[in-house]
Amino acid sequence: MQRSIRVGLIGLGTVGSGVVHILRRHAKRLQHEVGRPIELKGAAVRDLSKPREPEVPSHLLTDDALALARRSDIDIIVEVMGGVDEAKAYALEALQQGKRLVTANKAIIALKGQELFDAAKQNGVGIYFEASVAGGIPIIKALRESLAANRIESVYGILNGTCNYILTQMSNNGQPYETALKKAQELGYAEADPTFDVDGHDTAHKIAILSSLAYGYRVDAQHVQFEGIRGIQPQDLECAREMGYTVKLLGISRRLDDGVSVQAHPTMIPETSVLANVQDAYNAVAVVGDAVGPALFLGLGAGKLPTASAVVADLLDAARDLAANAPAEIPLCWRADVPPSADSETEAQKALKSACSRRYIRLEAEDRPGVLAEIAAALGRHGVSIAAVSQKESTPMSEGTVPLILLTHLAAERGLRAALDEINDLPCVRQPGVSIRVETEL
Amino acid sequence: MQRSIRVGLIGLGTVGSGVVHILRRHAKRLQHEVGRPIELKGAAVRDLSKPREPEVPSHLLTDDALALARRSDIDIIVEVMGGVDEAKAYALEALQQGKRLVTANKAIIALKGQELFDAAKQNGVGIYFEASVAGGIPIIKALRESLAANRIESVYGILNGTCNYILTQMSNNGQPYETALKKAQELGYAEADPTFDVDGHDTAHKIAILSSLAYGYRVDAQHVQFEGIRGIQPQDLECAREMGYTVKLLGISRRLDDGVSVQAHPTMIPETSVLANVQDAYNAVAVVGDAVGPALFLGLGAGKLPTASAVVADLLDAARDLAANAPAEIPLCWRADVPPSADSETEAQKALKSACSRRYIRLEAEDRPGVLAEIAAALGRHGVSIAAVSQKESTPMSEGTVPLILLTHLAAERGLRAALDEINDLPCVRQPGVSIRVETEL
Repeated sequence: MQRSIRVGLIGLGTVGSGVVHILRRHAKRLQHEVGRPIELKGAAVRDLSKPREPEVPSHLLTDDALALARRSDIDIIVEVMGGVDEAKAYALEALQQGKRLVTANKAIIALKGQELFDAAKQNGVGIYFEASVAGGIPIIKALRESLAANRIESVYGILNGTCNYILTQMSNNGQPYETALKKAQELGYAEADPTFDVDGHDTAHKIAILSSLAYGYRVDAQHVQFEGIRGIQPQDLECAREMGYTVKLLGISRRLDDGVSVQAHPTMIPETSVLANVQDAYNAVAVVGDAVGPALFLGLGAGKLPTASAVVADLLDAARDLAANAPAEIPLCWRADVPPSADSETEAQKALKSACSRRYIRLEAEDRPGVLAEIAAALGRHGVSIAAVSQKESTPMSEGTVPLILLTHLAAERGLRAALDEINDLPCVRQPGVSIRVETEL
Repeated sequence: MQRSIRVGLIGLGTVGSGVVHILRRHAKRLQHEVGRPIELKGAAVRDLSKPREPEVPSHLLTDDALALARRSDIDIIVEVMGGVDEAKAYALEALQQGKRLVTANKAIIALKGQELFDAAKQNGVGIYFEASVAGGIPIIKALRESLAANRIESVYGILNGTCNYILTQMSNNGQPYETALKKAQELGYAEADPTFDVDGHDTAHKIAILSSLAYGYRVDAQHVQFEGIRGIQPQDLECAREMGYTVKLLGISRRLDDGVSVQAHPTMIPETSVLANVQDAYNAVAVVGDAVGPALFLGLGAGKLPTASAVVADLLDAARDLAANAPAEIPLCWRADVPPSADSETEAQKALKSACSRRYIRLEAEDRPGVLAEIAAALGRHGVSIAAVSQKESTPMSEGTVPLILLTHLAAERGLRAALDEINDLPCVRQPGVSIRVETEL
């Protein structure tokens, strides 16, 4: 029998324990798939005394992750600890020691991708990161391999299960944001500090990775404009429904004539859209290619076993590449020797500024004559034309005000922002307005 | 510069010309992906004089496909001619000559898979067949690689774009089957002889391939029970809608305690199901795995460029494997050295016979007292219990008859079939009844 594929695991939290579970449960079949047994040689944890489920023999545990990443009797390092700087240091060490790296960590790919792939290239080993975006949905492989014959025109989707769960709760049950968040926390869908998810950082990181792969040049996660879902209220979802729309937090990227636009924000999409019907903690990613046309991938984007499913699939790929001694496959976006498809990231940002959108705007305005005229004038000054207005007899948020709903026609992003700034400064407007992009084509 | 990847194309019809189009349009990027240029060395066609779009230089054309498959200066044979016996002969020859094989031909995989994979194994070369099922949707790679960490519990989906287009037309516009078929033929979605699509053969072949990959043992396409959509009328779709259902032609396979069940038939599914909202020529495949949970893949299942997208993706994989000199990856279901997951195909069929389903039944019955009692008695004798009955005042198909709609409770397949046979033989029933399985869980 051939020697085993020797694996070191960094992190034994939710995902790490899912990986151990799958490796044990399906050991025999996985061995058939790869032709060699997969053997867990060590696992790095923070707290050696913490009980683990499934149990991992204590002689395999270490609290020295760097030493694990350096061990000469390990072929593949699986990093599922999360975080940025520490995780990156271990990942880099593993690559420099000539080990293949499997990671579920979107942050190190989105923020430190270039450094990691440079090290991978120098050492002739691959990085496998399917689990970093959309959990169990094989969207990374789809973009890197299955759709490689396509010029990708756009990639967009629901990439954060926490936000999708909260928005589904708010929309279906009329719950306020805070109640829905609390329920998400109780169910383990949201962290105690939900900032990273609900404010859109997570979606921005993920759409940056997907865009980099889709368009063939690196989109820096730090340049992605993003908004979260904290400002959205049940009445916004109700208004959306009345107009035939649903609100989802989307990562959206498009190829433009002179670059790409990459954004992450709450978006009103037609309720007949497939994405509108993606509920709860599910994720979905749509890709439009010049040959394949529109394609959509749907599944659980987080959680112990769905994420571990992607990690183990990567582990099998890494094991096959190891057995075949295959060279590192560096994605075009992280390859220094391939000219980028667009001139620079600055071009992408320039393109973004010339982008257009339609907006849903909800304002808390004074209930007196002339207010609507003031607001309409501000929009008009910035070239934003109003498609519909609705003022409802609902409970005001503070005395003497009424909620005012505006729907704009397609307008330049620049003008919309300037108009919103001006409106928020009007004395007749009590609170910063809620503004949600409307996409009719998704 | 390294030597090119030399490709021979068998078939220059719709898909073949799509492949040529993509290879030309994206030549530079594909070369970056693989590290070597991809060069079309020859293309086998039936009629050398036929004009081609895009044009292929005449010195590349041959009408001797077997000679092309044997050429020593070709690395990869791409078979996109369709058909069974001839295509298989060329494919086999290519494998025996040590060439990698890319094919879009579901029939040769579903019916001759074992012979082809045996030859692939003996010659140490891979077979790449992503385009054989669901066109541009990368479901083969998902099952073979991305979901390899899962024990797959079920696979089901809309696998035939022609039937889905016809059913969508009938459902949305109330068109009779014949009108919808004619429109599908005009648009190029259906062949002049639509038998293979509309009678369910195509779906049966595809679900056989998906099931073989999903469960790890070969499901013979010839053992898959299937039904087509010819018998379905607009009134069935209307009744379905009134009950909150939609009718789709589905391939459905499930892992059972003692085998698998694999079938292809029109199915009533809840209109809230994602599959129910897959319209026109789109395909969609759902997979349920023990780790990933439910996952869904949606896209165009046929057509020149979507299918060519999958063929070229396979070509890139084959080119990478060639460059790395990677060994043939034979799927477990076609590997003689791996024990099958279930004991035999006979077990699968045994399991199928013990399966249960709910049925929608439409009968054209005599309009006189006592008829319903006779029909109900026949069902009762076979243990089939009625959940709902509806008799409408609609136009009868022949004088003195009325359409009678029955919905059964869950009942054994065996009993349902026996009851239907008995009902069709009753003198009060004028035409063979239309019976559609109802699935509430999809």
